[in-house]
Amino acid sequence: MTDSQSTADMKFVEVGRVVNTFTDDIPKDYKEKTSEIHIHEKYSDSLLGIEEHSHIVVLCWFDRSDRTIQRVHPMRDANKPLTGVFATRSPVRPNPISVTVCRLVERRGDILVVEGLDAYDGTPVIDLKSYSTKHVIDDPKFPAWVPEK
Amino acid sequence: MTDSQSTADMKFVEVGRVVNTFTDDIPKDYKEKTSEIHIHEKYSDSLLGIEEHSHIVVLCWFDRSDRTIQRVHPMRDANKPLTGVFATRSPVRPNPISVTVCRLVERRGDILVVEGLDAYDGTPVIDLKSYSTKHVIDDPKFPAWVPEK
Repeated sequence: MTDSQSTADMKFVEVGRVVNTFTDDIPKDYKEKTSEIHIHEKYSDSLLGIEEHSHIVVLCWFDRSDRTIQRVHPMRDANKPLTGVFATRSPVRPNPISVTVCRLVERRGDILVVEGLDAYDGTPVIDLKSYSTKHVIDDPKFPAWVPEK
Repeated sequence: MTDSQSTADMKFVEVGRVVNTFTDDIPKDYKEKTSEIHIHEKYSDSLLGIEEHSHIVVLCWFDRSDRTIQRVHPMRDANKPLTGVFATRSPVRPNPISVTVCRLVERRGDILVVEGLDAYDGTPVIDLKSYSTKHVIDDPKFPAWVPEK
């Protein structure tokens, strides 16, 4: 199968949008900041029961990200080794999809208030998932430059 | 901004493809099974250094998934409460993107051998990310039906 055939149907929809005060920069203390996620009415049925979760996984489409860069110095730090974007969490990558675990502070109808989202105001939201302890690794190994909790 | 405007550029590319023996079903013990991820040559620069990670996050496009279903009984279990897909890890959802933490067993050039991937043979791979302990939550709360580790 060629690349063009396989990607013909791979177009996704915006299910909501980020609303916050991050217009030009993501603040360094974004982990303590709240954002709103406004889910479009068409997708509100998909929210049933989400308020029972303390944390959710938020997938955004980082529409400001460069999609052509394949290697970066992580965290824009020239002292960190040049690394393929697939081995990083850099926002630049062929498909700029972010995956962020956020605390769900409150649900108000189709608006979710979350803490810890690293996305600009107006960023398209493309998926939400429940946080699962199934994805916690007991003893991961990674390069020294990777930030730990 | 209308939905159609905002999604105009939200088309993603296939960066690789899953190769395994899961043609009709995902085996129950998929956590112990290996799959290969064949990264397309165009994106091989993005892999630099990935072999230094014991675990990676694999994002696939679940091209067999129904995109119209918004509420499910989790794990296809009628005894579990009807739940919005955004509050689950169900493969059916408006944008059927999977996020799975896999053990990286081996890298052979542009082929990654991973353990624990819950994707059918031939599934498009759309992103890889490093696994980070930053995303581990100490004391998450979730409904009783959510499977734990």
